[in-house]
Amino acid sequence: AIINRIIELIPPVGDLGGLTVLITAGGTREPIDPVRYISNRSSGKMGYSLAGAAFNRGARVILITTPTSLEPPPGVDVVRVETALEMHDAVMNRYAEADVVIKAAAVADYRPRLKAEQKIKKEGDTLTLELEKNPDILFDLGINKMEGVTLVGFAAETENLIENAREKVRKKNLDLLVANDVTLPGAGFGTDTNIAKLIYPDGSIVSLPLMDKPALANRILDEVIAIRSNHS
Amino acid sequence: AIINRIIELIPPVGDLGGLTVLITAGGTREPIDPVRYISNRSSGKMGYSLAGAAFNRGARVILITTPTSLEPPPGVDVVRVETALEMHDAVMNRYAEADVVIKAAAVADYRPRLKAEQKIKKEGDTLTLELEKNPDILFDLGINKMEGVTLVGFAAETENLIENAREKVRKKNLDLLVANDVTLPGAGFGTDTNIAKLIYPDGSIVSLPLMDKPALANRILDEVIAIRSNHS
Repeated sequence: AIINRIIELIPPVGDLGGLTVLITAGGTREPIDPVRYISNRSSGKMGYSLAGAAFNRGARVILITTPTSLEPPPGVDVVRVETALEMHDAVMNRYAEADVVIKAAAVADYRPRLKAEQKIKKEGDTLTLELEKNPDILFDLGINKMEGVTLVGFAAETENLIENAREKVRKKNLDLLVANDVTLPGAGFGTDTNIAKLIYPDGSIVSLPLMDKPALANRILDEVIAIRSNHS
Repeated sequence: AIINRIIELIPPVGDLGGLTVLITAGGTREPIDPVRYISNRSSGKMGYSLAGAAFNRGARVILITTPTSLEPPPGVDVVRVETALEMHDAVMNRYAEADVVIKAAAVADYRPRLKAEQKIKKEGDTLTLELEKNPDILFDLGINKMEGVTLVGFAAETENLIENAREKVRKKNLDLLVANDVTLPGAGFGTDTNIAKLIYPDGSIVSLPLMDKPALANRILDEVIAIRSNHS
């Protein structure tokens, strides 16, 4: 009885052994000129927490990250990118190696159509910035998904969370979507905690309580393992 | 002789005693919607180095800073802002207290004309962002400069550094402009070092070698003291 209790208390180490997990993290930067860019409030904490947790559970981890203020977890294969186009290329280059892909990065939907070679001087009272669409990395991963690959996306929403998230799971051929309303206190960008909903392809939803990001990372990895054992 | 040599080796501690130094640091963030913003490559390192150096030399320090990944130096009065408009208000609120103002922050020249209440969905293939001019904080400081106040600006340039900088000193009523070409390796944003030119109202220029930012901070404070003793 005592030995069973001890076994229960051991954290799930090694249950991702033999798997390669590709994780993206941070917010992309889309240059306007050599000094200015468009970005977003992603701190990279969720992606870095996932990378550390997956490595601790035995996975080989590829972390594709934009510039953040975080130290990458030791033991992780780090690929540094800045723009959405660079992230798209890096993810596609490494996709064939991955058993699990978790796209925690906040990728800019649009980039400036032209990057000015020199710093733009402030001349006029107004300035018009023409933006064009970036590739949809998650969509490209979904349509090219190989048998046996588990694909997890994130959605940061400020309204209509459930409807937007259900459509995203279906359209992007995901196995799991982690959605959060970034307007809630304690949820979303820059915070150490998150309030997430797990959304599955069958439309079912699990609403999680406020959790710190490392705990949420382990919860997501638990789901990945459950999804993979259901499929096999 | 030995005592003179020892005195030479003592760093200039306390030579800013009795003065209040207001320093701005970091790059402003100009929101497009609740998650996206326009920013720039400023890391805040130069401003934080100046704040730490001024405090160590006996000044009372007010540090007005955007979000950065740096810890503010202990003993410094920290005011946190995000946008250029917030920085403008914070600087103007505290201007009357300052004997020395050093504007090391990279303030966005333009902000989106409208901030979307909700996250903008990616619908069209292109998007047009209308920007409008932010107030010019340094110019407003210059035209309202009180007798006895020393005003130091920074200029990050990518071309025509000298011409642009000389015009800026004159137009903004500065006592000193620290200009650097951010395209040079080891200079500018995000690096731990800088290659600066000091530009004075009389048009004279001092070209400094590659220095680490704390050393450059102390060099700038030396200049501030020299400027103030010439005026008194």
